[in-house]
Amino acid sequence: MTEYVVQKYGGSSVATPELIARVAERVQATRESCTGVVVVVSAMGDTTDNLVSLAHQITDDPPSREMDMLLSAGETITAPLLTMALAARGIKAIALSGLQAGIRTSASHRKARITDVVPLRVLDELARGNVVVVAGFQGATEGMDITTLGRGGSDTSAVAIAVAIGASSCEIYTDVSGVHTADPRLIPEARPLADISYEEMLELAAVGARVLHPRAVEIGEVYGMPILVRSAFDQSAGTLIHRSPAMENRQRVRGIAHETDVAKMTLVHVPDRPGIVAALFGAFGAANINVDIIVQNVSHDGTTDVSFTLAETDLCEAEKVVAELVPRTGASGYEASANIATVSVVGTGIRGAPGVFASAFQALAGAGINIQLISTSEIRLTCVVDRAQVEDAVRALHHVFLAALDDDHLV
Amino acid sequence: MTEYVVQKYGGSSVATPELIARVAERVQATRESCTGVVVVVSAMGDTTDNLVSLAHQITDDPPSREMDMLLSAGETITAPLLTMALAARGIKAIALSGLQAGIRTSASHRKARITDVVPLRVLDELARGNVVVVAGFQGATEGMDITTLGRGGSDTSAVAIAVAIGASSCEIYTDVSGVHTADPRLIPEARPLADISYEEMLELAAVGARVLHPRAVEIGEVYGMPILVRSAFDQSAGTLIHRSPAMENRQRVRGIAHETDVAKMTLVHVPDRPGIVAALFGAFGAANINVDIIVQNVSHDGTTDVSFTLAETDLCEAEKVVAELVPRTGASGYEASANIATVSVVGTGIRGAPGVFASAFQALAGAGINIQLISTSEIRLTCVVDRAQVEDAVRALHHVFLAALDDDHLV
Repeated sequence: MTEYVVQKYGGSSVATPELIARVAERVQATRESCTGVVVVVSAMGDTTDNLVSLAHQITDDPPSREMDMLLSAGETITAPLLTMALAARGIKAIALSGLQAGIRTSASHRKARITDVVPLRVLDELARGNVVVVAGFQGATEGMDITTLGRGGSDTSAVAIAVAIGASSCEIYTDVSGVHTADPRLIPEARPLADISYEEMLELAAVGARVLHPRAVEIGEVYGMPILVRSAFDQSAGTLIHRSPAMENRQRVRGIAHETDVAKMTLVHVPDRPGIVAALFGAFGAANINVDIIVQNVSHDGTTDVSFTLAETDLCEAEKVVAELVPRTGASGYEASANIATVSVVGTGIRGAPGVFASAFQALAGAGINIQLISTSEIRLTCVVDRAQVEDAVRALHHVFLAALDDDHLV
Repeated sequence: MTEYVVQKYGGSSVATPELIARVAERVQATRESCTGVVVVVSAMGDTTDNLVSLAHQITDDPPSREMDMLLSAGETITAPLLTMALAARGIKAIALSGLQAGIRTSASHRKARITDVVPLRVLDELARGNVVVVAGFQGATEGMDITTLGRGGSDTSAVAIAVAIGASSCEIYTDVSGVHTADPRLIPEARPLADISYEEMLELAAVGARVLHPRAVEIGEVYGMPILVRSAFDQSAGTLIHRSPAMENRQRVRGIAHETDVAKMTLVHVPDRPGIVAALFGAFGAANINVDIIVQNVSHDGTTDVSFTLAETDLCEAEKVVAELVPRTGASGYEASANIATVSVVGTGIRGAPGVFASAFQALAGAGINIQLISTSEIRLTCVVDRAQVEDAVRALHHVFLAALDDDHLV
């Protein structure tokens, strides 16, 4: 029985020739205990940013098809370099581009979706005893045009390839030692979780946990591919993302996430008629502006306030859309605020445990933090707060829910 | 009737975003008077050297297949950047990799030969009204592995594409204003030629003229593709390389070329038996060492001296080969000298004009230069001289043959 493993190394893990040599050492250790290893790599360090900057020195509005060809160079550099480092250690290895690895995508340049992985070449090279090093983040259309997968692209490449070749697991190597109970840069006592469900990881990632992109988690969930997130720089065990293992024994709250690059807008006194909110978010969709949290309260006197959060970088564009829309909706006006943040409590146990909400609000109140908006899902509570208070908010929530976490659930 | 032109821009012409914008301006001017333009680009400035250096930071002996994938990134960056600059000027354009442009090659990585150009996509994009920007220097094997074409690769890409699409001419843009009567950095009075035959250009390129690689000239000669070498930085007319136009009216000598990174070896007192020289150069071939000039004089006393020149970078390796061979050949020993150079006089008129040889030797003698070896072809005279004297040698020869050149033959 052949056992394949896919490993993905992010940009900070391959930022220099020395670090690439360390990754090769790690891959070698895996190869010794495993039939076949596929390694997916990101661009070295700041390479992608530098390429974007080159393009913007030439034009403010680079065509996205050419941008993809340009950006693909980043991973096309790392993959052969790691392969050389493996060869230098006597490990048989071969580098493949996304195209060569069979990553077929839509033609939506800069944010292409993987439509299929045709792993013939990858399986062939594994059968020849090669470690296969694949350039992440990139794929190709039917017509062989190069595409890139957008944010989280290399994670997505890795999980998709793992599914396509029937790997036993997909390991994501990064600069932190797993999925933490909160951002360890903010909360020194935050600890890595031993495991987490796909669903919880999706919610955490959606509300600010940067460790793994939601797209990769989604593919893992759909195909039941276990994803292990661990550090490229130490030997700690990492966090396993997999099917919810033992629901009854779970902790209520698994992690606290936060986001600071958030803005908020409110449409004031919107007439409570069908179609108005649809028109607003339709216009946002057309302008390619993603809205995160939407809150609309019950209507009094025939009007209501509609609030929503969005990425701070989209605020300027969104204000233009809203300013144009307000007179046509009969709203009395709008408010915009860039100076906010979100803090979220995530965990399967929140469902059916109203005490969690009460404890959260109590903790925030105790820290003197005013809650501007509240949004909940089955497994998540998100509060919008003043940006200056977000660190206090994360600390207060982590202290209440996670400081005394059962050691069985930690690394 | 559709008229296509291929233009190639070298690394120094696209070294910065500003220079790329200037190339776009130039391409736009061509596009306005021409049905279709294909632009072949090299890597920006030092990019290729930097990628080579990255590889050597990882291993002394990088596998050549992976080296090719790595190096291909250089041109894969320039092509979309130039396309963006064209788009910014309102010119419809599309970037293609060597693979996408249909450059099919042998699998000899780092020095692949073009086996075929399948220009379906290129012709299709031209028919859509696009300027087609092709990444030079790179191609792909049948199995879609990326290859690079070695020295002069982008020139070769350009001429091969020009032939494949039936272009009316191939323009090579570089940092000098054409093929000069001698290296203008050495001889300020050297002037660009208005035209030159493929044959003469091949000889000039083989003995040191760096302006265009012999491989590109060879393809041009075989398919009768006119090649115009001109400056990317000014509007001078450049030098047209084409079928020998008017043999009878030609100047005897067209140019003086020189090379300084040359070494010389002599096997002393080699027994004059069949097979010994074959064994020597067979061993060089096996060690991938190219020998340029070989001189063997008539034999006295049953032994002869065999001298040859080679690239200085190969000297150390060549000494190993020779040291091992000497005892087996019965030669009395060998001499090696790194401190030499070659100077060559090239022109179709040399054939049947023995006065040229006499004038050349006289000029060198008059400048106090000792000739160490002499080699001739139908259209070339090459002398090996002390490296410290090469500049004087070029100056003396240029003065005798080219200072009073007929103005009809100059730009």
